[in-house]
Amino acid sequence: MIYLNNAATTWPKPEQVYQEIDDFFRNYGTNPSRGGSLGLSIVERKIFEIREKLAALINAQHSARIIFTSGATESLNLGIKGIVKKGDHVITSCLEHNSVLRPLNKLKKDLGIEVSYIDVDEFGTLDPKSVAEAIREDTRLIITTHASNVIGTLVDIKEIAQLARKNNILYMVDAAQTAGVFPIDLEEVEIDLLAMPGHKSLYGPPGIGVLYIREGIELDTLIEGGTGSNSLDPYQPQVIPDRYESGTQNTIGIIGLGSGIDFINQTGLLEIKEHELELTDQLLKGLIAREEVVVYGRKDTISRAPVVAFNLKGQGAAEVAYRLEDKYSIAVRAGLHCAPLVHKSLGTVEQGMIRVSFSYFNTKKDVETLLKAIDEILKEIK
Amino acid sequence: MIYLNNAATTWPKPEQVYQEIDDFFRNYGTNPSRGGSLGLSIVERKIFEIREKLAALINAQHSARIIFTSGATESLNLGIKGIVKKGDHVITSCLEHNSVLRPLNKLKKDLGIEVSYIDVDEFGTLDPKSVAEAIREDTRLIITTHASNVIGTLVDIKEIAQLARKNNILYMVDAAQTAGVFPIDLEEVEIDLLAMPGHKSLYGPPGIGVLYIREGIELDTLIEGGTGSNSLDPYQPQVIPDRYESGTQNTIGIIGLGSGIDFINQTGLLEIKEHELELTDQLLKGLIAREEVVVYGRKDTISRAPVVAFNLKGQGAAEVAYRLEDKYSIAVRAGLHCAPLVHKSLGTVEQGMIRVSFSYFNTKKDVETLLKAIDEILKEIK
Repeated sequence: MIYLNNAATTWPKPEQVYQEIDDFFRNYGTNPSRGGSLGLSIVERKIFEIREKLAALINAQHSARIIFTSGATESLNLGIKGIVKKGDHVITSCLEHNSVLRPLNKLKKDLGIEVSYIDVDEFGTLDPKSVAEAIREDTRLIITTHASNVIGTLVDIKEIAQLARKNNILYMVDAAQTAGVFPIDLEEVEIDLLAMPGHKSLYGPPGIGVLYIREGIELDTLIEGGTGSNSLDPYQPQVIPDRYESGTQNTIGIIGLGSGIDFINQTGLLEIKEHELELTDQLLKGLIAREEVVVYGRKDTISRAPVVAFNLKGQGAAEVAYRLEDKYSIAVRAGLHCAPLVHKSLGTVEQGMIRVSFSYFNTKKDVETLLKAIDEILKEIK
Repeated sequence: MIYLNNAATTWPKPEQVYQEIDDFFRNYGTNPSRGGSLGLSIVERKIFEIREKLAALINAQHSARIIFTSGATESLNLGIKGIVKKGDHVITSCLEHNSVLRPLNKLKKDLGIEVSYIDVDEFGTLDPKSVAEAIREDTRLIITTHASNVIGTLVDIKEIAQLARKNNILYMVDAAQTAGVFPIDLEEVEIDLLAMPGHKSLYGPPGIGVLYIREGIELDTLIEGGTGSNSLDPYQPQVIPDRYESGTQNTIGIIGLGSGIDFINQTGLLEIKEHELELTDQLLKGLIAREEVVVYGRKDTISRAPVVAFNLKGQGAAEVAYRLEDKYSIAVRAGLHCAPLVHKSLGTVEQGMIRVSFSYFNTKKDVETLLKAIDEILKEIK
């Protein structure tokens, strides 16, 4: 199978991820900080080291502000619900995934918050000026993705971060499509909350995610429980990261995420980015050259993640994806990709889109095979 | 190492759990229902089958009412916060873990709910009559553990379930210490919400848990996001299990939990229970025979889970546990075990307790070695 659905989850993972998870699970699969009293256990030490690696990856100063969650969806829910209170105003974009839109809609219903959805142009570009114009007295939070999970367009998070800072508003970024491919430097880009999935371009397993919380920000908790510390405290302890990590940690998820980051560091993030954008360029050029194909979003690799959305003119996306998988063993993803507003914006709610997304393990040959398959499908349906 | 801290997490896992996780992760580690359009994918089919196995294990009628969570802590938070509303009254017990107590305390602070904590006797027995007496007009939920995670005493969940049903109150059970060891039959015992961790006696990995929700009960959601279904719905879909399972599922966690349940079914739940209670009996008899030892809770294996708590008279639990681990390579757990009220009730807040907890993989030899080590420690400290 040629797997081109890496924006959903990367597959395969680097060999070391499989091996380290299996090795750790067999040999150290005990419970960190719920064990004996021999000081910091091996498990705790490993988890600490991985927090440090994550902090280094995004240039965060304190690794205790790296919170492990069950995935980017929990990270986003924790960030949004931990900040936004009754009567607040929130600014977001039409590029967002349902993991941002649905928590916000719930708070609209439950707490009467108000939300401004900033629209994008046909290339998926979010104009920071439109964000600036939406700012109100009661704006508490701006939340945007770093890149559209549908058409790949990058958001200018640096400019929005400055805007937020200047107006004393918190800024949260959903890095589901960029963490591990695009450099994120928290010293340079002053994001307040950053959500990252473990199982996408960080090459970890499913079931683990990250939320970075900038110094000075305290969130209301989403889940309370045992933290292995301060058992007598009737409330959730204030100490971080414990405050946001109740219950037994997903240790094998954390270990797998750690090996994924090792892989990225060994390979080089910029090498990964360059390789994936090269494939993106190859695919874009191939698709644009075929006049029966409509490509959505930007037609170049400037300001875009390695995600390409297209359709065959007049063909439902799902049918084409089915043919690709059934006849050519090529896995792509068709539909709305859990991001309804961008489809409304681009008029593809009915048709859906075919989405191709790369990982470091894809090759030029994969793209050639896909383009050939598309040609054959185009011939068949003529 | 002799591992006697299975109430924290079971270790080792059955060999098939390691193997199936590794095999699945390597070969099918793609994203269920976020993939192509070839009908139900292999991954979705496997997840469905495991839901069916879980439903069979607890005799639940509809497997769609088995919700996968990140662990029992999320299950408990989802159940509690999904039910309890402003002004409600809740009944719970002094045996509870912080994963029950802290969410309740948060709701006390945030929503002004009221909570009655039913005390237990010196054996840890919760008298259903005391629960009955605490019922008020505005009681919405009763929540108890199935067995104390500290002293092992079982709670009469059948009697409390009848009481709850008769009074039109919902009953939630925390089966963290019993699922996989004690039969739970939801046709016989009318629990409304049942929380189970995957990584304890169900022999799955950390990072996966279960919440069963009885027919007719709809919970408010804790986390909203993409469900792969009804992308256009601005709110969380009503359809179960999707409604409560936002974001990419922890597929390898679910697969591991599935193999754990296969192991239980192959071995026989009653065989597991019998073996673990035999070890419990052996340990209890050994400890009681030593007059420098104080055993907490019941002194027999009637109405108890395979968890034993004790102290050496006048010795702090942590120091003894340290000696056991450092010198004898025996892992037990000392402290308050995230369950503060039972320690207040039994007067061991300062001293803590040493807790020994078994899995199916422990042996009589393990117990003998532990008892010998205790004798040596007793000699040394004399």
